[in-house]
Amino acid sequence: MKTTLSNRTKVKRLSDRGHYDRETIHAILDEALVCHVGFVVDGQPYVIPTGFARIGDDLFIHGSSASRMLRNLATGVDVCITVTLIDGLVLARSAFHHSINYRSVVIVGKAKLVEDAHEKSKLLEAFTEHMIPGRWAEVRWPTELELKATSVLKLPIEEASAKIRRGDPKDDEEDYVMDVWAGVLPLYMKTGHPVPDKKLQDGLEVPGYVSEYRRNAF
Amino acid sequence: MKTTLSNRTKVKRLSDRGHYDRETIHAILDEALVCHVGFVVDGQPYVIPTGFARIGDDLFIHGSSASRMLRNLATGVDVCITVTLIDGLVLARSAFHHSINYRSVVIVGKAKLVEDAHEKSKLLEAFTEHMIPGRWAEVRWPTELELKATSVLKLPIEEASAKIRRGDPKDDEEDYVMDVWAGVLPLYMKTGHPVPDKKLQDGLEVPGYVSEYRRNAF
Repeated sequence: MKTTLSNRTKVKRLSDRGHYDRETIHAILDEALVCHVGFVVDGQPYVIPTGFARIGDDLFIHGSSASRMLRNLATGVDVCITVTLIDGLVLARSAFHHSINYRSVVIVGKAKLVEDAHEKSKLLEAFTEHMIPGRWAEVRWPTELELKATSVLKLPIEEASAKIRRGDPKDDEEDYVMDVWAGVLPLYMKTGHPVPDKKLQDGLEVPGYVSEYRRNAF
Repeated sequence: MKTTLSNRTKVKRLSDRGHYDRETIHAILDEALVCHVGFVVDGQPYVIPTGFARIGDDLFIHGSSASRMLRNLATGVDVCITVTLIDGLVLARSAFHHSINYRSVVIVGKAKLVEDAHEKSKLLEAFTEHMIPGRWAEVRWPTELELKATSVLKLPIEEASAKIRRGDPKDDEEDYVMDVWAGVLPLYMKTGHPVPDKKLQDGLEVPGYVSEYRRNAF
């Protein structure tokens, strides 16, 4: 199933990099940890990084009810949410053709406030599980007060597109004979050793979903 | 030296996370590979990921002269450029206090087109070296035609702020007795094995600046 073809999200430059099927878009969203939210206040654009979650064909962001960004978006203004994964450096023989392998998604639309307390609670589960699957079952769940202090916004993944660059550099034909190493240097997100909280209770082992955490296929 | 204190970039929520000294801001910019550029067309915000370089107190982005984004920005409209580094998952005892350790920079201002061919050439060197130090000396440098096909925009790093979260989770006092593992799972950018271009000339070794490439301190 595809997203709505829109002049606002159609990939124009290097259009063969554009993708509009939900499977591709969802996979990129589910791998990313943060999105960049763009909104306009008095003509000035702002771009703010924040966590998010996806459920079906909707994307959700959340934050303090006191947040300037969330209060602004909740009024139903136009928003652009962009997610980017970096996959590698593309090292061409010419400076001009250097590039980055990446997968990105751009979604535009109007965000709406989620007001229902039950739905908000389910969404806080989704935020936690988006960050680290397996965590929700172990932690203290939000109180009524915490739910009130949290604003959640919903953006339909409808006017959306993905853009992907992968594979070898594309050099000019006459440059292929150059004695310059060319190729791709893959980059990916890796975990370090878990650092226990200084106030951790004695005898608690690192859970498997933490020690085995992987954000991607590598 | 500090950036200009501005209502548009002052960190308001969790203001102890805000930093305004150039050293902190520059270090985050220099480590990041891509920025997210926010701009407005007909009231609609767009957020687009792209490579960049920093020279002194200016940030530069570039792309095809045919690019919709660059043509738009070159008219001198308001822009917001945001850079985000993800450092780890912050696993609290309560779902509510889960967070992400990160370092981000937000810059607002008006971008200006760089027109001078000599300056543009120096900037293409900066873009390549920002991506992978040591590369510029080895590759074919841009031709006059390639320079013409490339638009470069300059944004002063003046109205700018950094926001940093680091360290342990902050749980509610009564939750510290819970038998739940809490702490930080560090995340960082790692390289994979270099993948040679399928059309690589015989006998070319992977250069040291590729095999030893590190994007951060880890």
